[in-house]
Amino acid sequence: MLTIVVDMMGSDKGSKVLLEGVKMFLNDTNFQDAELILVGKKEELSVLSSERIKIENAEEVLPMEAGTFDALRAKNTSMYKAVNLVKENNYSAVVSAGSTGGFISLATIKMRMIEGIERAALVSPFPSRIGKQVVVLDIGANNENNAQQIYQFAIMGKIYAEEVLEVKKPSLYLLSNGAEEKKGSPEIKEAYQLIKNSSLEGFKGSIEGRDALKGDVDVLVTDGYSGNIFLKTNEGMASIMSDLIKEAFNRNILSKIGYLFSNKGFKEMKKKMNYKSFGGAMLLGINGVAVKAHGSSDAYSFYCALKVAYRMSKIDIVNKLKEGVNRS
Amino acid sequence: MLTIVVDMMGSDKGSKVLLEGVKMFLNDTNFQDAELILVGKKEELSVLSSERIKIENAEEVLPMEAGTFDALRAKNTSMYKAVNLVKENNYSAVVSAGSTGGFISLATIKMRMIEGIERAALVSPFPSRIGKQVVVLDIGANNENNAQQIYQFAIMGKIYAEEVLEVKKPSLYLLSNGAEEKKGSPEIKEAYQLIKNSSLEGFKGSIEGRDALKGDVDVLVTDGYSGNIFLKTNEGMASIMSDLIKEAFNRNILSKIGYLFSNKGFKEMKKKMNYKSFGGAMLLGINGVAVKAHGSSDAYSFYCALKVAYRMSKIDIVNKLKEGVNRS
Repeated sequence: MLTIVVDMMGSDKGSKVLLEGVKMFLNDTNFQDAELILVGKKEELSVLSSERIKIENAEEVLPMEAGTFDALRAKNTSMYKAVNLVKENNYSAVVSAGSTGGFISLATIKMRMIEGIERAALVSPFPSRIGKQVVVLDIGANNENNAQQIYQFAIMGKIYAEEVLEVKKPSLYLLSNGAEEKKGSPEIKEAYQLIKNSSLEGFKGSIEGRDALKGDVDVLVTDGYSGNIFLKTNEGMASIMSDLIKEAFNRNILSKIGYLFSNKGFKEMKKKMNYKSFGGAMLLGINGVAVKAHGSSDAYSFYCALKVAYRMSKIDIVNKLKEGVNRS
Repeated sequence: MLTIVVDMMGSDKGSKVLLEGVKMFLNDTNFQDAELILVGKKEELSVLSSERIKIENAEEVLPMEAGTFDALRAKNTSMYKAVNLVKENNYSAVVSAGSTGGFISLATIKMRMIEGIERAALVSPFPSRIGKQVVVLDIGANNENNAQQIYQFAIMGKIYAEEVLEVKKPSLYLLSNGAEEKKGSPEIKEAYQLIKNSSLEGFKGSIEGRDALKGDVDVLVTDGYSGNIFLKTNEGMASIMSDLIKEAFNRNILSKIGYLFSNKGFKEMKKKMNYKSFGGAMLLGINGVAVKAHGSSDAYSFYCALKVAYRMSKIDIVNKLKEGVNRS
């Protein structure tokens, strides 16, 4: 039996929406060997009853903008309690839709880093032009990274692609401001040399943001600051283009008729580029499974985040990372 | 009379396409007080004749991947000759569609920096959700920048928005990995304090890549490395979405009929988000007007780049920047 601890507070939309996601997970026949511990306000959570859930009361919510210090000090928050439960009982995984900064701090400090790894990385699969997923890391656990840390992200990203997405011989690229070896920030240029001269297989060089999601890349390696810019810029442009598509179809009666004829393709497109279906970002490099669901998660995406946590636990990602880092 | 010197070589598409752009510019009644000096292979360029053009022969092309050293050493390239002509004769402006790195190096070293400015910045207007242009700088003249340099980019960006785009009281934001004051790379956090504590008006704080093009921002200030990631990531996602729209309409006979009904809105959308119509990126901070057209410029976008160079010269942007930097 796997035990996943779920922080039910701190999301933008409240525990009601998250409870719907939990229900979807409980009803999915693929995950019958998982039980959940829900942490949050008892009166809100007890509307759900199942043999496979336990409720742990917590009255406080960690604010979205909480820093490391706040997160560690506020011991009555649902997030603190959830992470602590996992740590003290060696449970399988923890999932939260609350403050990203707080969650990273708590998970990193409580669960501790895997020996030999300098910095944890937040990793998330991105949708690509051709439909396949691109693993991008770090997308924001760090404000800055040195070359050695970026090199370790490459190792972890490769393992994630192989073990979680089951990609055979994944191709690795560094995100940079040019495709040439000599391009990049000082850290990226140094990381290029570290990776190139290592035994890590599949490294294909640097790539620009405009080509990174076209389909050649399986793992996109970046420092946390640039990775976060990359993530959010993609989200922004995808959202602008989606809005403009809606506007174009809502223009007048003719365009609305046009939509009736062509909507199937546009619905497929929406599905393909839907970030929410990827569920959550995974914190790699710590001694445990920690999944950060989007703060604005709807029921479906929270259910996806729970699935990600389940899968990570099932394949024992932590030990795979330990082996990988020691090998290199 | 304004004199704009044009490097006619080094673009991806050859001088023929650029010549078409030159023709459009010459025929535009708005710019009859400008003459052009075209630098490139005489036999290719002499197909065009006009009282307002002169041809300066150059046989060599600077390769796209050329570094600073190559650019400065290769004195027979059209780019070297073009920049040198401007410098020695104090002409109004220089335009090139060739190697970005080479052009920045040549322009910066030959024309020299404006006194008091530490680093030149490449600036380009971006299309936004609501149609208005967002000035983004630096989009790639630099691989890294310190806080003081980023602060100076804010000053230059504000002047550009006011003087070139004629925006009254432009709003300034720093591109960052969060909207809060404490977020950002170390350099961005420091730049935040410098700008906040300066007399620069219109500073509204930090903004994430996902919100930067929604319409609130007039000037988006960033270090050159992150700015380049931002630029290319936007281009990449816009191009992926455009491809997917085409696919959705080409799906079958029904969707093609749908396109007939709704194409007007989609054509408008394409126009709105067309980066090419913005013509070129301008190198701010040097003693002269230097416009870098896109390497893959078509005739129209090269014509736009010439227009940008004309406008910059006409309003005497260099002196406006000098005044602005000295005021702050």
